[in-house]
Amino acid sequence: MTTFKQISGNVCAPLGFKASGIAVGLKKSQKPDLSLIYSEVPANAAGVYTKNKIKAAPLLLTKKNVKKGQLKAIITNSGNANSCTGKEGKQHAQQTMEELATQLKIKPHLVAVSSTGVIGVSLPIEKILTGIPKLTEQLAHDGGEAAARAILTTDTFIKEEAIELKLSNGNKVRIGGISKGSGMIHPNMATMLAYLTSDINISAELLQTTLTMVVNNSFNMISVDGDSSTNDMALVMANGMAKNSQITSVKDPDWEIFYHGLSYVCTSLARQIAKDGEGASKLITVNVHGAKTTKAAKCIAKSVISSSLFKSAVFGNDANWGRIACAIGYAETQIKLQKLVIALEDLTLFANGLPIAFDETLAYSLLDKPEVVINVNLGMGDKTATAWGCDLTYDYVKINAAYRT
Amino acid sequence: MTTFKQISGNVCAPLGFKASGIAVGLKKSQKPDLSLIYSEVPANAAGVYTKNKIKAAPLLLTKKNVKKGQLKAIITNSGNANSCTGKEGKQHAQQTMEELATQLKIKPHLVAVSSTGVIGVSLPIEKILTGIPKLTEQLAHDGGEAAARAILTTDTFIKEEAIELKLSNGNKVRIGGISKGSGMIHPNMATMLAYLTSDINISAELLQTTLTMVVNNSFNMISVDGDSSTNDMALVMANGMAKNSQITSVKDPDWEIFYHGLSYVCTSLARQIAKDGEGASKLITVNVHGAKTTKAAKCIAKSVISSSLFKSAVFGNDANWGRIACAIGYAETQIKLQKLVIALEDLTLFANGLPIAFDETLAYSLLDKPEVVINVNLGMGDKTATAWGCDLTYDYVKINAAYRT
Repeated sequence: MTTFKQISGNVCAPLGFKASGIAVGLKKSQKPDLSLIYSEVPANAAGVYTKNKIKAAPLLLTKKNVKKGQLKAIITNSGNANSCTGKEGKQHAQQTMEELATQLKIKPHLVAVSSTGVIGVSLPIEKILTGIPKLTEQLAHDGGEAAARAILTTDTFIKEEAIELKLSNGNKVRIGGISKGSGMIHPNMATMLAYLTSDINISAELLQTTLTMVVNNSFNMISVDGDSSTNDMALVMANGMAKNSQITSVKDPDWEIFYHGLSYVCTSLARQIAKDGEGASKLITVNVHGAKTTKAAKCIAKSVISSSLFKSAVFGNDANWGRIACAIGYAETQIKLQKLVIALEDLTLFANGLPIAFDETLAYSLLDKPEVVINVNLGMGDKTATAWGCDLTYDYVKINAAYRT
Repeated sequence: MTTFKQISGNVCAPLGFKASGIAVGLKKSQKPDLSLIYSEVPANAAGVYTKNKIKAAPLLLTKKNVKKGQLKAIITNSGNANSCTGKEGKQHAQQTMEELATQLKIKPHLVAVSSTGVIGVSLPIEKILTGIPKLTEQLAHDGGEAAARAILTTDTFIKEEAIELKLSNGNKVRIGGISKGSGMIHPNMATMLAYLTSDINISAELLQTTLTMVVNNSFNMISVDGDSSTNDMALVMANGMAKNSQITSVKDPDWEIFYHGLSYVCTSLARQIAKDGEGASKLITVNVHGAKTTKAAKCIAKSVISSSLFKSAVFGNDANWGRIACAIGYAETQIKLQKLVIALEDLTLFANGLPIAFDETLAYSLLDKPEVVINVNLGMGDKTATAWGCDLTYDYVKINAAYRT
């Protein structure tokens, strides 16, 4: 395994990155709502996007730009998704890109534009255009936290992570990231944004391959409510300022080091998103062992983490393992009931096709914690998967009953 | 279209059916928990079952018996699902079947056994065996309501429906039904039970075909929380006491009359289940028009009705149509955003790829009703589908946070 150390910080941890975040009045609360991440030199870039067939205008624009392989800036507004907004929405995304490019004196295609918030409301574009000069002026090497704050919607805390790792020749490289989530979080990107930065030198093509692999085991393994939004994306910029010789193949030993580092950062951000699910009081981790295939393991883990009944039971500290069995049973993969083991941490609840008598007081105490861990063993092979989610609480309903008001 | 009249009653409405329901102490509340439906003559029978790969012991036994083509009795206990209970569970289902057959002096394979309630707890079989003599003694032509009551778990009201229809030669036949639902309701049977009776004379084979068709458009189009249980089934008994000449083909004009009648009864029961979803305050109907295929229409309707975000918005009387668009977008079928129309009853919210300015006060009043109707038109063809569900409320979470306690 790769060794690396966790460091304080975020997207500004790697060399050559600045960020900023300000309020321009898109949110009624007057909280920060315009965010910028900037690389001093053009960075190779890659992206993974929502699978929702309705895609927001900024996402489509960003996808086109990222395809060219490089970015210098990512601008995000929160409070308005600029989705289902027709031709005007496209114009607004375009205007945002052009105005930022003008201010930064860079080519427009080096700008990624992103929006998150309510769907189907026209973007107050003047507020954004007016804000851009201030946003660029405030770019700073310690601006990552402000940027992380300005991308939030119903999130209750900022999500950030940074690590430092050593390549095979001793070169130090860093990876940082910020993200936002909350409701509408589900496998296949859903309502979440994640921005990763690194000073590593890696080809754009390999960066794309790496990001896709990493996202499949991190952001695509979390679920808050099963909904997938029109705006979700994960973007990575790698600007090469660490000056290692460019990594172009998965066979390069440095690639594996980078892969594990990026996995760590994305998994950390994914867990933070799950923990901050709307109304959530607990992070739930579902580990599936003993599957015949990784696909089967993921399928079971996602089915359990997405069950409203199971999530409600966790909220109530109720070791109702029948709901776990049930969610395993309706997952789209075969199981053998006789071989199935369901445990709460190490406390076995079901095995050999039968309920196991367990200490209810111990079970309650294992459920009454900030992180609840469910271990499922299918007894059919050696593949594993992990999914993360949160409990379903009164507050989830409260937050979503009147989101627009 | 077939004409028929709605009549008062339930499974006892058709000729030759009796029912009963008593309390034997499976429920802590001491509410009725053992139910029986009985046909005076052997009835042709058919069943549709959960697609969950974990199936409860009674369900497996019933499936085997129904396959033989006839039933005389359906016994159901609520309060305990007898699921994930191993060999003992199988024995308990078998004992229930045998004891009831003995009491009724019929062959055991004419008995269907069914259970609903908590998973993975050993069935207190003595209470059931002790209760069976009283259950059979109380069989009565007006016992349908007692039977309907004794199959409930967290349901707040009994579900029943009955109609009378005229066959082509003037013969009158009746169809009746009862059901239970509440949580864990979703397409593909989920946690629900439905029992249908008729005095029509129809072959067992055609009855099975008909039931499968009807269930696909009724019980399989409702969703409460996306969970599918281990115990769900719909059973129908047709005892032939109306003395029509046996219907054996879908080409028989009487078949269509029966098909529409059974559809009406099952749709009515499905709507009642959706309306009584755990914690629900409203019935939601999603009509999808203009689809290229029925499959696509169903897929979109189910996706919208299953969205937690949309369901929460309906609870809050919030016309947040973006969540409907979003759920349409992540359904597994193609759409054209420019052709999509989303309306709340007749109030258009989205069309031509753009939000439509609408009267928020009117929208609020259309949402603040016992039944909320969403109309979606895909503008791509002439196929339609309807799905039913309920809003997501604080009470859903409350009910499910501590179900076992």
